[in-house]
Amino acid sequence: MSNQIKVAIAGYGNLGRGVESALAQNPDMQLVGVFSRRDPSSVELLNKDVPVYAIADIEQFQDQVDVMILCGGSRSDLPEQGPYLAQFFNTVDSFDTHAKVNEYFDALDIPAKKAGKIALLSVGWDPGLFSLNRLYGETILPQGETYTFWGKGLSQGHSDAIRRVAGVKSGVQYTLPSETAIARVRAGEQPELTTREKHTRQCFIVLDDGADAEQIRHSIVTMPDYFADYDTEVNFIDSATFAKEHTKMPHGGFVIRSGVTGTASKQTIEYSLALDSNPEFTASVLVAYARAVHKLASRGEVGAKTVFDVAPGLLSPKTPAQLRKDLL
Amino acid sequence: MSNQIKVAIAGYGNLGRGVESALAQNPDMQLVGVFSRRDPSSVELLNKDVPVYAIADIEQFQDQVDVMILCGGSRSDLPEQGPYLAQFFNTVDSFDTHAKVNEYFDALDIPAKKAGKIALLSVGWDPGLFSLNRLYGETILPQGETYTFWGKGLSQGHSDAIRRVAGVKSGVQYTLPSETAIARVRAGEQPELTTREKHTRQCFIVLDDGADAEQIRHSIVTMPDYFADYDTEVNFIDSATFAKEHTKMPHGGFVIRSGVTGTASKQTIEYSLALDSNPEFTASVLVAYARAVHKLASRGEVGAKTVFDVAPGLLSPKTPAQLRKDLL
Repeated sequence: MSNQIKVAIAGYGNLGRGVESALAQNPDMQLVGVFSRRDPSSVELLNKDVPVYAIADIEQFQDQVDVMILCGGSRSDLPEQGPYLAQFFNTVDSFDTHAKVNEYFDALDIPAKKAGKIALLSVGWDPGLFSLNRLYGETILPQGETYTFWGKGLSQGHSDAIRRVAGVKSGVQYTLPSETAIARVRAGEQPELTTREKHTRQCFIVLDDGADAEQIRHSIVTMPDYFADYDTEVNFIDSATFAKEHTKMPHGGFVIRSGVTGTASKQTIEYSLALDSNPEFTASVLVAYARAVHKLASRGEVGAKTVFDVAPGLLSPKTPAQLRKDLL
Repeated sequence: MSNQIKVAIAGYGNLGRGVESALAQNPDMQLVGVFSRRDPSSVELLNKDVPVYAIADIEQFQDQVDVMILCGGSRSDLPEQGPYLAQFFNTVDSFDTHAKVNEYFDALDIPAKKAGKIALLSVGWDPGLFSLNRLYGETILPQGETYTFWGKGLSQGHSDAIRRVAGVKSGVQYTLPSETAIARVRAGEQPELTTREKHTRQCFIVLDDGADAEQIRHSIVTMPDYFADYDTEVNFIDSATFAKEHTKMPHGGFVIRSGVTGTASKQTIEYSLALDSNPEFTASVLVAYARAVHKLASRGEVGAKTVFDVAPGLLSPKTPAQLRKDLL
């Protein structure tokens, strides 16, 4: 299809691989290349027909790519790559360092406007779809409270933290939302919830030979910032069980808006995700928004944008009349 | 506040009253008048300071209203009032006759464009928020199925149908989503569900003196179009219980998208509403979208629009930078 949207990927880890898979489910888009910091010959794509290039050469491709999907990390990759690539490409990324979002927005907005490009930041599910639901919730029910719960899901940061404890051979940490807290919110109580009341933490650990389980459990549950403020369950398992049951990346969560209208009508809006694969889902959101970026760019819009700025219809390959007929 | 958005209401039934309540929760908007077909002196608003006018005089107010919220019914009111009022006002309505939505869109688009106005149609929760979630679902997870369940909720049409049965003094009908069907969808089975498997119907009836309960039950459960295709539960109660427990208008429902990404990762997106008052909630959605209409009109946009065309950020009174900081 010659009128396919030409998409490229910058950075090929779990997220980049997810984007490659998601693009294959969208026949109006075509993956034209993957850019990596690694030696291109060492990068194995799912589809061997797609070329891999050195990221150092990326500027040369500015006329061959409609939308560049940035799949680097928020800590060190995106703050550099985002503003640099916004000079040459329409971009979409999943920047998720909440405290720096307006700073990053400005860093993208300047080069994007100068180049006449769109830079869509912080796309995924949180930030992303959850943000949208927080927005719809508070605007529709202005008198109310919004609650975000995460899980059940694998937390990369907490898993890294338990693996740094001496005597831990391998380990994962799942964040679990409190069913009791969710039930109270659904009932319209609008409770004030402490950190400990909202989520619990569940660890699965394989010990090094001769390691002291009780000492490791104590080190984990008392670890400041990561575990001390939560109820934490520590489970010790063997390597075979670990390999079988704990190598996937599930995640999900809930955004609940509990509000009151009229004199005393309780109204509850609930949005939830249950994901077998966190990176594949985030990638799927990035790809749908890449389509919207292409449409916005085709209309002549420029600058940094977020999901709040994107009309939902732009995500779809269907025409507005078809959308009204099929989905309204 | 002199820079409040000036809103008026056309039609003052349950929905119009809900809009009046919802506007009171949004300090950036002001209700400047209510237009009714009834004698204005007979219409009692919640706020006695707001003037009521005869709808016949509405054209005279075209310079005094930023957005007109149409609170008439979809069957006979809106098809006439919508195109007529789009000549003079930016409008928002809750048109919900799905089969005629593109026809109604065109009927609004022509006068609205000619007058340089916005006409936003089919706003509420279904059509409206549920439509948005069907759209987000199928664009993010193109390989999957979308399921819409309604209830637990009062169905006006089915309640009217049971009240037409001879011997029924008063009656209501609730539509209930099937918990079994929802569980199968949540599990990622992507089942094909029949009408009977998706919803059940629950009736509460007060009998006339001497009426034959069994005959009435039979007339209801076998009624074509309304009940014959469903499992229907008929409960007989006394007038006091009816007055106490069955005079509210609760509703709600679920939109679930069940999809697969990568090779076999099940991904589930679920959106649900649990509403004590259906008209008050619909009204709250109309009011948030009235703000968006005002912003779109201020930018010079014109013509018929749906929720698919409205960027979410436009619903909020906050600035884009504030939204990124607070909600992203």
